[in-house]
Amino acid sequence: MIDGKIGVCVVGAGRAGMIHAVNFLKNVPGAALAAVADPVEETARASARELGIETYYLSHKQALENSDIDAYVVVSPTKFHVDIVKEIAAEKKHILCEKPMAMNVDECEEMIQAAEENHIKLQIGFMRRFDESFCHAKSVIEAGEIGDVVMVRSNTRGPSIPRPWMYDIKKSNGPLAEVNSHDIDTMRWFTGSEFKSLYAIGGNYRCPDAKAEFPDFYDNVVMTASFESGAQGMLDGAQGVGYAYDAKVEILGTKGCIYLGNLKGDNTLICHSDTRTGTYPLVESWRGLFKDAYRREDQAFIECILNDTEPKVTGLDGKMAVKVVNAGNISIMEKRIVEL
Amino acid sequence: MIDGKIGVCVVGAGRAGMIHAVNFLKNVPGAALAAVADPVEETARASARELGIETYYLSHKQALENSDIDAYVVVSPTKFHVDIVKEIAAEKKHILCEKPMAMNVDECEEMIQAAEENHIKLQIGFMRRFDESFCHAKSVIEAGEIGDVVMVRSNTRGPSIPRPWMYDIKKSNGPLAEVNSHDIDTMRWFTGSEFKSLYAIGGNYRCPDAKAEFPDFYDNVVMTASFESGAQGMLDGAQGVGYAYDAKVEILGTKGCIYLGNLKGDNTLICHSDTRTGTYPLVESWRGLFKDAYRREDQAFIECILNDTEPKVTGLDGKMAVKVVNAGNISIMEKRIVEL
Amino acid sequence: MIDGKIGVCVVGAGRAGMIHAVNFLKNVPGAALAAVADPVEETARASARELGIETYYLSHKQALENSDIDAYVVVSPTKFHVDIVKEIAAEKKHILCEKPMAMNVDECEEMIQAAEENHIKLQIGFMRRFDESFCHAKSVIEAGEIGDVVMVRSNTRGPSIPRPWMYDIKKSNGPLAEVNSHDIDTMRWFTGSEFKSLYAIGGNYRCPDAKAEFPDFYDNVVMTASFESGAQGMLDGAQGVGYAYDAKVEILGTKGCIYLGNLKGDNTLICHSDTRTGTYPLVESWRGLFKDAYRREDQAFIECILNDTEPKVTGLDGKMAVKVVNAGNISIMEKRIVEL
Amino acid sequence: MIDGKIGVCVVGAGRAGMIHAVNFLKNVPGAALAAVADPVEETARASARELGIETYYLSHKQALENSDIDAYVVVSPTKFHVDIVKEIAAEKKHILCEKPMAMNVDECEEMIQAAEENHIKLQIGFMRRFDESFCHAKSVIEAGEIGDVVMVRSNTRGPSIPRPWMYDIKKSNGPLAEVNSHDIDTMRWFTGSEFKSLYAIGGNYRCPDAKAEFPDFYDNVVMTASFESGAQGMLDGAQGVGYAYDAKVEILGTKGCIYLGNLKGDNTLICHSDTRTGTYPLVESWRGLFKDAYRREDQAFIECILNDTEPKVTGLDGKMAVKVVNAGNISIMEKRIVEL
Repeated sequence: MIDGKIGVCVVGAGRAGMIHAVNFLKNVPGAALAAVADPVEETARASARELGIETYYLSHKQALENSDIDAYVVVSPTKFHVDIVKEIAAEKKHILCEKPMAMNVDECEEMIQAAEENHIKLQIGFMRRFDESFCHAKSVIEAGEIGDVVMVRSNTRGPSIPRPWMYDIKKSNGPLAEVNSHDIDTMRWFTGSEFKSLYAIGGNYRCPDAKAEFPDFYDNVVMTASFESGAQGMLDGAQGVGYAYDAKVEILGTKGCIYLGNLKGDNTLICHSDTRTGTYPLVESWRGLFKDAYRREDQAFIECILNDTEPKVTGLDGKMAVKVVNAGNISIMEKRIVEL
Repeated sequence: MIDGKIGVCVVGAGRAGMIHAVNFLKNVPGAALAAVADPVEETARASARELGIETYYLSHKQALENSDIDAYVVVSPTKFHVDIVKEIAAEKKHILCEKPMAMNVDECEEMIQAAEENHIKLQIGFMRRFDESFCHAKSVIEAGEIGDVVMVRSNTRGPSIPRPWMYDIKKSNGPLAEVNSHDIDTMRWFTGSEFKSLYAIGGNYRCPDAKAEFPDFYDNVVMTASFESGAQGMLDGAQGVGYAYDAKVEILGTKGCIYLGNLKGDNTLICHSDTRTGTYPLVESWRGLFKDAYRREDQAFIECILNDTEPKVTGLDGKMAVKVVNAGNISIMEKRIVEL
Repeated sequence: MIDGKIGVCVVGAGRAGMIHAVNFLKNVPGAALAAVADPVEETARASARELGIETYYLSHKQALENSDIDAYVVVSPTKFHVDIVKEIAAEKKHILCEKPMAMNVDECEEMIQAAEENHIKLQIGFMRRFDESFCHAKSVIEAGEIGDVVMVRSNTRGPSIPRPWMYDIKKSNGPLAEVNSHDIDTMRWFTGSEFKSLYAIGGNYRCPDAKAEFPDFYDNVVMTASFESGAQGMLDGAQGVGYAYDAKVEILGTKGCIYLGNLKGDNTLICHSDTRTGTYPLVESWRGLFKDAYRREDQAFIECILNDTEPKVTGLDGKMAVKVVNAGNISIMEKRIVEL
Repeated sequence: MIDGKIGVCVVGAGRAGMIHAVNFLKNVPGAALAAVADPVEETARASARELGIETYYLSHKQALENSDIDAYVVVSPTKFHVDIVKEIAAEKKHILCEKPMAMNVDECEEMIQAAEENHIKLQIGFMRRFDESFCHAKSVIEAGEIGDVVMVRSNTRGPSIPRPWMYDIKKSNGPLAEVNSHDIDTMRWFTGSEFKSLYAIGGNYRCPDAKAEFPDFYDNVVMTASFESGAQGMLDGAQGVGYAYDAKVEILGTKGCIYLGNLKGDNTLICHSDTRTGTYPLVESWRGLFKDAYRREDQAFIECILNDTEPKVTGLDGKMAVKVVNAGNISIMEKRIVEL
């Protein structure tokens, strides 16, 4: 604790890590940012300086020696999640682990078990569950306003070209993991049900340099799914689309339909006399679109520690998304329907 | 009558005239297009050929000799309306007269009197009263859904540069007459009240060639008004804006607000990766935007003849709009508030 | 020919049939509506009366005896298309055949062969290809503005509950045929390619009375597909959604994305002070949404006869859509990926 | 200074005051929130507790004894601004003064003089100049994209019923001051010019309890204006509209038009099958809509102190807006055009 507040260390000082760090620095009552950790010393030092804090570490292990730190946000590359989470849990510190939770279901289960055995909170970083629009939609569904959920259609298309470390799907789990984990979680949340079977198709349309060495790499994916509840699901994902960070959901129910999503980058519409067209800027990044959702996510994490309540997004949620990612990748590679 | 249908002659074969002609040719049950009349013989002949009819005249006077014609649509230049309407009324034929009704209130009163004395229908061409959205708004107001009307704000901005015959405001009555007659009528209709006082400002921003000879010419106008009901009004008008035919209304009530208007030319949104912008085409013309309204207007005209009912838009409506146009032009020229 | 115009007979006087009939009566230069045919005499007579024409028949066979008729619009139930089209073709009359073209690929091929052997025009009724927005999108794609097409996502959800004759999928081909034929054609058109493989899932969510007798019936369907070009496709369809006629398309390219679709029934937005919400009416029917597209479709049909050119939508287009419908139904029933 | 940062005291702990206080606490690099001051001790204490700071004062005079404080944000009722600002300036502390700057032009000039004589920064709180959309629009104008500015139309309608202290226009300056100061500043900014003459109409539509005692009170206002540049202006304002915080601007230029504004409270559209309508929530408050603008405004204030640059919004801007407010109120009360 730091002055009666939950001391927080962010492990991994990349873009998403810095969003969390800034939140715990300023925007989360009851929390204090104690440190950042990053294996690249220059990154760790620069991010601490940028945040105006003094303490940085080169690993979560170093941080664990600081007894002021009560909680960790794990924003490292996915493949390191399982070890980092288990080691932090063993020291009985709370954890907010970014999505994807891990590389496979076994890892997720080890992480869940470690959290349970050590009686710590383990929250998974599906921040869309804290977005105002998504929460509004969920409450509309729960109030029965659209009847039973028949179908959820969700897409996320990111503007940036994939980085080469994503090319090896076996190591990165691909866009389904990096981009569409959110859609998978959203579909589970809005149907209130689990994926039962799925079929996915992937293709590489924008990364010609990856084709020779990584023929399995895909930067665009479409998927259909059946849910245990009987509902249907559709998902599409893309990296490198350029035009926008395009994230939308439609929830079709027996009594109506909900549309979620925003393409407009700001509210300036420019009408041009020469072309008789109207033009508006598009959403550039998830960082702007979900800024408030990240803040509420971080606040909820601290509140579940302070009030000793269940996190709103649990290890089970993280595990089920990983399960679907892996099934989707199998479906793409083996060109077959996969039962879950 | 032609085969038991109301025979119609369109007087004035310009763009608006042809819209009416095509409607009476095809889209108005109970009516048959008998002829077109236009003083320019080549125009009259070409429009008849385009419509696939045989009969054309060089004036309404010629047409009046044809006893098959029961009704006239007057789409001539405004300054000729008073004489044409009186002469047609004297022959006891029904009249749909395009807006603006006439050049001044005296003319309007002569026209109304001629219609009354000869027991004919005189309908004025405010076709927005037949538009689906405008009718929807009117019914919402009448149902009390937005409470009492506090303020109506209406604008029409046309894409096309004014033609030189409009430069002399004394002869053309300017954009207030040519463009904003519709807004004036809309404001009267939605407030259910008459203009009590107004103040308008005009300026010439896009027609530099008119400035020397016609210093009073304006191509942009803003106006505020008080209504007898106590409601407030705002209007703006423009010619030559280029970007679109931009017609919108907001009706603020004590319990809510109605927005009317559509800028989108079609429903194609194109998102560009290079500029991260979304672009859509804008409405190009009133002809497309109000096509269905013209059709319903023409149908209503025939129905009021067949059923011997009052036209939905009367000579009084035409006169009150002319009164406001003239008051607005006085306000602009004399730079003062005008009481009506 | 009738007065030098192509004489047209509409076979099947239901809702879609009457749209065509009204067009040929009024809106298609070079064409004249000669007759309607419908096996139910009362329907045939009433529709002729409504159209203001004198001639009606109880079958296309009766009509074929009328040498004034040069062209037929076939809007009968799908299962009758093959025989009707072959019999009309044998008499060397031109045909606009509504979608779905037929029940299966064999029927389509018989129809195409009949048209070829008799040198007649055979156009298939995918009217979206004549919609302003869809044409705009196609021209944007062809101009290379969005680069190569990566993925087309298309959905059509109809407001009305399916009628009992649709319950037997073997006889009706289900919503894929009745609702999503349009999406299938759109996907072929925008990708410029053929379906290579697909996987579809169907379910019955709104028609409980059909479940016992017709366990295969579905009123909601999702589908993913691979195209020969390498592009990906997604489709969803529904009957009985109630809230709107909801038809949208997204075309993702390597340089941008196109959004098509319109949910707004008119342009009236009502803002309510008590609930702080804004409400607008939704599109009620394909009849309003695609009214102009039907008109242009009918005009194009007459033009291809007059100019002796290839129809814009050919028998091949009709056949390929039927092939995909059948493959989709097999996929749903056999729960497997289907190669085409 | 506090740890090398600009120490800030917020004077007036109401809703707007707390927005600034939270910003200086967390969101403004180079600044530290030192204290809040409010004449109501309970308010002062509670706000300090809510902010997690220890120091609060009952007046700016008390605060001026604290040498750690370098800058003040004045969010007191408008009538106190002149004295507070002069007293703070006399102590050579920097000032961010909320809008409206003061009750009349004389007061504004005293404040400007006090700032100049004491060489302090005086920034006025027109936060819309820091809003992303507004800044985008300004840069589009400056780039010449819409040509010369012909007309600016701006409206602000607030959802909340006016509080009784606003009823006496002589004391409150009315909605023109409280609500439309922003529109007035926006119109000056986007035209790059000063108001030359104006005409305004006011009315009381929603506050019947004010009518007897305060016949001059208005809760709805419309205004037209001429600018020195020749441009035209339109403004409307309202209090108590209920449905939304409705703030929009249109900037008509000779080459195009810019639309600013956002009515949607979040991005959830709910489509209802029973009514065939789509419904979305509306913007509830300026606090949400302009949250980021307040943050950037506060950051800019600190930056102009640190870099010794001119504030982006100066005392002159504040004065000119007050001048227009007063002219508008005269116009309403004396029912005449007012020259400035």
